[in-house]
Amino acid sequence: MQTTDLFAKRTDAMKASEIRELLKLLDQPDIISFAGGIPDPDYFPREAFTQAMQIALGQDMAATSLQYAASEGYAPLRAWIAGYMKERGVDCDLDNILITAGSQQALDYIGKLYLDKNDTALIEWPTYLGALGAFKAYEPIFDRLNAGENRMPNEIAQTAALAGGRVKFSYLSPDFANPTGKTMSQAERLSVLAQAEALDIAVIEDAAYQSLRYAGDDVPSILALEMEQKGDIDACRTIFCGSFSKTLAPGLRVGWVVAAKPVISQMVLLKQAGDLQTATINQIAVNHVARSVFDEHVTTLRAVYGARLQAMLRALKDYMPEGVTWTEPQGGMFVWVTLPKHLDGKLLLEQALAQKVAFVPGAAFYADGDTRNTMRLNFTMTDDQAIQTGIARLANVIQTALSS
Amino acid sequence: MQTTDLFAKRTDAMKASEIRELLKLLDQPDIISFAGGIPDPDYFPREAFTQAMQIALGQDMAATSLQYAASEGYAPLRAWIAGYMKERGVDCDLDNILITAGSQQALDYIGKLYLDKNDTALIEWPTYLGALGAFKAYEPIFDRLNAGENRMPNEIAQTAALAGGRVKFSYLSPDFANPTGKTMSQAERLSVLAQAEALDIAVIEDAAYQSLRYAGDDVPSILALEMEQKGDIDACRTIFCGSFSKTLAPGLRVGWVVAAKPVISQMVLLKQAGDLQTATINQIAVNHVARSVFDEHVTTLRAVYGARLQAMLRALKDYMPEGVTWTEPQGGMFVWVTLPKHLDGKLLLEQALAQKVAFVPGAAFYADGDTRNTMRLNFTMTDDQAIQTGIARLANVIQTALSS
Repeated sequence: MQTTDLFAKRTDAMKASEIRELLKLLDQPDIISFAGGIPDPDYFPREAFTQAMQIALGQDMAATSLQYAASEGYAPLRAWIAGYMKERGVDCDLDNILITAGSQQALDYIGKLYLDKNDTALIEWPTYLGALGAFKAYEPIFDRLNAGENRMPNEIAQTAALAGGRVKFSYLSPDFANPTGKTMSQAERLSVLAQAEALDIAVIEDAAYQSLRYAGDDVPSILALEMEQKGDIDACRTIFCGSFSKTLAPGLRVGWVVAAKPVISQMVLLKQAGDLQTATINQIAVNHVARSVFDEHVTTLRAVYGARLQAMLRALKDYMPEGVTWTEPQGGMFVWVTLPKHLDGKLLLEQALAQKVAFVPGAAFYADGDTRNTMRLNFTMTDDQAIQTGIARLANVIQTALSS
Repeated sequence: MQTTDLFAKRTDAMKASEIRELLKLLDQPDIISFAGGIPDPDYFPREAFTQAMQIALGQDMAATSLQYAASEGYAPLRAWIAGYMKERGVDCDLDNILITAGSQQALDYIGKLYLDKNDTALIEWPTYLGALGAFKAYEPIFDRLNAGENRMPNEIAQTAALAGGRVKFSYLSPDFANPTGKTMSQAERLSVLAQAEALDIAVIEDAAYQSLRYAGDDVPSILALEMEQKGDIDACRTIFCGSFSKTLAPGLRVGWVVAAKPVISQMVLLKQAGDLQTATINQIAVNHVARSVFDEHVTTLRAVYGARLQAMLRALKDYMPEGVTWTEPQGGMFVWVTLPKHLDGKLLLEQALAQKVAFVPGAAFYADGDTRNTMRLNFTMTDDQAIQTGIARLANVIQTALSS
């Protein structure tokens, strides 16, 4: 029998995602779950997709929709994205845009594009679990992106050299990050750019939640700020990863990358080698839906999710015991809760499940898995009443743990 | 400006696919092209897909179709595939099946799963260009799969060790291979298995064309033969890669992998890290179309493509000058032509394009790019008349080259 010892060394680092394993256990309807990170299906633009699929499969379009297509993606969709980017301060050509199977695939291909074994990726601490998973396949070292800290670029570069490679990029999600919900200020974004300049590395800007702002003013994307400095997308080092999963629907797996042409043309080769192209019919459908309902649909989502976020922040304030703190996001899908130091989110989860409430323990979001007194709460899948009840239950579990 | 010298070393080996670059130049309608490798869109099951998408986006299903889903794939589709495999001698569970974004992605993930830098992949000579592309990203050594030759396993293992790794798998397409159109006999398949046993490696069976047989009798798949020997899928070393691209439609990007559970469960992790999952709505649509029209649709394709293959073989016989030989496939999409030694397919292509006929020069299908006197002819996109005219033109170009 063939054994698994033939597997490449990279598989040693690739473990099952705790979140996805956890989600499988949550199919019981009486659990109030803050564990997911998915959009509310009640607000999918179902009718717009139905129309779009009718067009895509009509006499005129079916031969295109069902056929192979170019690896870089469907030109009309790339044109819509170019318009979206331009409205947000990034003037680019279609050749600066690659369509990917969701932004998760963009992260995989970026790891593949940049990371030799033992190269260093700078990441936030905590960061998106899926980014850790995508990059780990290329056996990098993770170092801590030092926004707001005081390590000199020299020191970071030296650490990377000692680890046997060089720093290749910093990865971050500046708007309403998963898991923390935090948004970076313009000054922080500029400092990331300055650091990248000093290190001569790429900046990977994960903009998955960009459109889901419920309060406060837009901050220009890192790529838009770099465009202001350099005037030309092809002179920029920032790679912008966008997604339709949070705005339209995740089940079609359509996202995109915007970057300098030499980066995109190499990523197109990775796409060819990786899966040839993103599904043609999905790109055509997303193009129609984006052109017909994007703005109004996002307005609806902002109202619905924004109200849920407020409900959660109110409930946290009303119920949580002293010593528990949390972020106050201006958008996105998550609130990040910090518990008193001696509490362990994972142990707490067992007790919470017994009380019919779920969340994701925070340790998994740290590259070193080392910080245990945190939890991620999702607010997009639960209505006001469930948020009230669920947070009250959770507060109760924490109170009990604190008193024991 | 950020330069491309940050790119990982693996990108050195990743070049633009000549075929895909070539296809871009072929949009002139007066060229008769044997260059593609795509299904005839006139025979896409458009109505079945229209119905399937209506169901997928109906009130009951849309919340599922548009949402995130499990990385391993949509269970009803995996159940249909389990039935398809069982009819072909492979009894397996749903846990032995992973849905991928086309079988190209299966090849990418197999490279990622097995290949450390300098490990050896045994491949046919020539082989599928997309397999070369997928595997190259993991920086392997390619050695020649020796079906019918006489190298001992010891010698192959030693060569791999000298190259700095070990042999991890042999990759082959036993039915109507791209580019040669050749089918392996049962004895050849058994010999591949015996070699894999001796080397203790995996066997990657690319079955993309399996259903497109136009003549002769089915030969059991390598996995089916191994099942006969071992009685249990989980004891098998063969990894079977299937695709709906050639039978239903490539534009949805749905394929699958069947293998032992430890292989599938590790590939599910690669899938999670790579793009989370194959598009939910596409899996649901393909499931409906497969269940409603698969057998009858494949029967239609066999009749249409089989007639075109016969037309091409007749035309080759009628027009080609002495010294030119070709394969006589029993299925698939391609005929492989061998020219007199001193002719170069690439140079010939320029002359052919001037005569308004196109093909793919064969050199790209060799890992060493070294054999130049071959060409790949596709017969699925051209009707009888175009085949006659195109082959006559091509014969003329070859005759001229031979006389000069």
